[in-house]
Amino acid sequence: MRYASRIRQMTSKASKAWDIHFIALEKRARGERAILLTVGNTDFASPEPAVAAVHKSLAAGRTHYSTSADSRPLREVIARCHAHKTGQMLDADQVVITVGAQNALLSAALCLVEPGDEVLVPEPMYVTYPDTIAVAGGEIIAIHSPAGNRFHPLVDDLEAAVGPRTRAIFLATPNNPTGAVYTREELSAIAALCHNRDLWLVSDEVYGEFVYEGRHFSPSILPGMAERTITIGSLSKSHAMPGWRLGWMIGPQEFANHANQIAFCSTYGVPTFLQDAAIAALERFPHGVPELQAAYRRRRDRLCDRMKSAPLLCCHRPEGGMFVMLDVRATGLSAYDFASGLVLEEGVAILPADDFGHSATGCLRINLGVADAEIDEAALRLSRYAERICQHKAVT
Amino acid sequence: MRYASRIRQMTSKASKAWDIHFIALEKRARGERAILLTVGNTDFASPEPAVAAVHKSLAAGRTHYSTSADSRPLREVIARCHAHKTGQMLDADQVVITVGAQNALLSAALCLVEPGDEVLVPEPMYVTYPDTIAVAGGEIIAIHSPAGNRFHPLVDDLEAAVGPRTRAIFLATPNNPTGAVYTREELSAIAALCHNRDLWLVSDEVYGEFVYEGRHFSPSILPGMAERTITIGSLSKSHAMPGWRLGWMIGPQEFANHANQIAFCSTYGVPTFLQDAAIAALERFPHGVPELQAAYRRRRDRLCDRMKSAPLLCCHRPEGGMFVMLDVRATGLSAYDFASGLVLEEGVAILPADDFGHSATGCLRINLGVADAEIDEAALRLSRYAERICQHKAVT
Repeated sequence: MRYASRIRQMTSKASKAWDIHFIALEKRARGERAILLTVGNTDFASPEPAVAAVHKSLAAGRTHYSTSADSRPLREVIARCHAHKTGQMLDADQVVITVGAQNALLSAALCLVEPGDEVLVPEPMYVTYPDTIAVAGGEIIAIHSPAGNRFHPLVDDLEAAVGPRTRAIFLATPNNPTGAVYTREELSAIAALCHNRDLWLVSDEVYGEFVYEGRHFSPSILPGMAERTITIGSLSKSHAMPGWRLGWMIGPQEFANHANQIAFCSTYGVPTFLQDAAIAALERFPHGVPELQAAYRRRRDRLCDRMKSAPLLCCHRPEGGMFVMLDVRATGLSAYDFASGLVLEEGVAILPADDFGHSATGCLRINLGVADAEIDEAALRLSRYAERICQHKAVT
Repeated sequence: MRYASRIRQMTSKASKAWDIHFIALEKRARGERAILLTVGNTDFASPEPAVAAVHKSLAAGRTHYSTSADSRPLREVIARCHAHKTGQMLDADQVVITVGAQNALLSAALCLVEPGDEVLVPEPMYVTYPDTIAVAGGEIIAIHSPAGNRFHPLVDDLEAAVGPRTRAIFLATPNNPTGAVYTREELSAIAALCHNRDLWLVSDEVYGEFVYEGRHFSPSILPGMAERTITIGSLSKSHAMPGWRLGWMIGPQEFANHANQIAFCSTYGVPTFLQDAAIAALERFPHGVPELQAAYRRRRDRLCDRMKSAPLLCCHRPEGGMFVMLDVRATGLSAYDFASGLVLEEGVAILPADDFGHSATGCLRINLGVADAEIDEAALRLSRYAERICQHKAVT
């Protein structure tokens, strides 16, 4: 049977990177201790007010189809939070509620990108980006973000990549996996490029509450950018609600109208009782959960500090986000082989980051979403494993 | 700013049909009695086991990202229910969980349909179909379903419409809005057509538990059809859970693999705590909620019986589904003008059905999802309104 050609354009093979995760799960099933630093989950519980809101809402029978009017209260809260954080003035009707940020990414792509279009994306990039653009029929032009430039892309490289078929730039700040927090100056240069070459800018800011160096900056507030910027947000990271699938996008009014049509065809809205939970979470923690942010900063520092003494390993202390990139190239092993040995010998599962893009070759992505004690233990085992590689190298 | 061309292909104008709904809401806001028979919501509460499962699941902290393995229990329950209902043997891996049936429709379209493809759909059809196919880049060829043929399409018409660009047939049985339940013979003929012309068949069976005449038949079990049929289901109707956004599709294994990739890009899965609720609902009511089905049958009969004596109105007693089609052409009024007068004079809001397709011209779609007493009262007011039109016609 024939499938649409977009299916052939989708690249996502079953990545062998996830072998590492499953090896660790098997170890656990056998009763061995395994530390999982793979999936971007968090050890934090979702906020109590969100859970309470679901109970209350279900008890009140709020289980019917959600209309546009029904989503107005949540859109107002999101607009208020966004305005407060970024300074962008906006109307609640510019907010489109989506089933998590992933649904926002796809809806934005479907609105903006069509077969034959090119989209520039700095890599390393989150692994769903290529397929998301492929579903819309577009093609990603990946822009190198050198580790030596703290994983920030060079605006000159972006500019050089713009061609007649370029329709948009998609970027994430802070970045997943690298944590790079793009500066106001970088984003201003990118904005100028968008303006001069008539490009859309899709700014994925789901890690915006996790910034340890510099400041999070939202390009939507740059002059002339509100009309060509789509800002994507979610509660997954900032409020420890990854499994709730609550996200949004903010853009010019015409975009929001089109995106709502797409959202209608895509999911027919987000459950009202989950919207009630989102309101409760945002009202209680308008800037995300402070303890969560503090924990990730603390764990980043603990891990990077402890790894300083490990031979052959280089931690890129991230500017933001929820991950640490660990460069293992000096071991002479590929990221996969390093990760594979690590999980087999030490029971620590870390994701080889090659799938995120060429700039991440030889790096592993360490998720900080586990208790401090597990971070410490993982650092210890990582060091021990690196020592052994080091000794083995010295012998051979 | 430029949008993707699929946006221009999307037709959904702000339909004036919904004016009727909003007039009724305004009446209610003024304290007047208004009966709303517009939106396909139900007066039934969602099943208690589903609500209890959410509470339990949230208390257990099941708020993390949902993996494919996490959705296995729900997929197994759905596979079991589907096998029991239809006789189709299948593996749980052939089930793809989606954010409601609408998300299944779009995901199926994205898997199967590409720019330039044509999709045959019997009309009247559910109003999201044209935009859903347009998002994938395809075009709908609407197939007439004459009221005189109980709103069933003629297989000859389907056959005549197949051209070199035809990729699939999408149909809903029972149909929304007409309630037409396609017979085994009709579906066998459609299956033969799919087989001979190498077409996919997408069978939307969300009303499958609401059949009052004949039997629901799932074309997937016809010889050679499992490999080219996508069956779409949901809990919205059968379990009074419209706002939960819990649906699925079942197809051949290769399709399921592709559809899971699309679902991953589209929504990144369905919340685990809602999957737990779906399991609870399906285990308690594997064939839907019997009281719900009984209520809709009873209301269908009450309404149609009461309308027999109303002048100028013709109720099409539906074979299935949750709506009654009311033909008002004999009044000389358009469906919109009839509905407009009805809501203004009698406070009964019914949706003009013209937007569902040409075969529904002059008809209104009456939602049966309100208490019996409201159905009776609506029938009374409808009759009174029709009497006045009748007298007015006699005078002029």
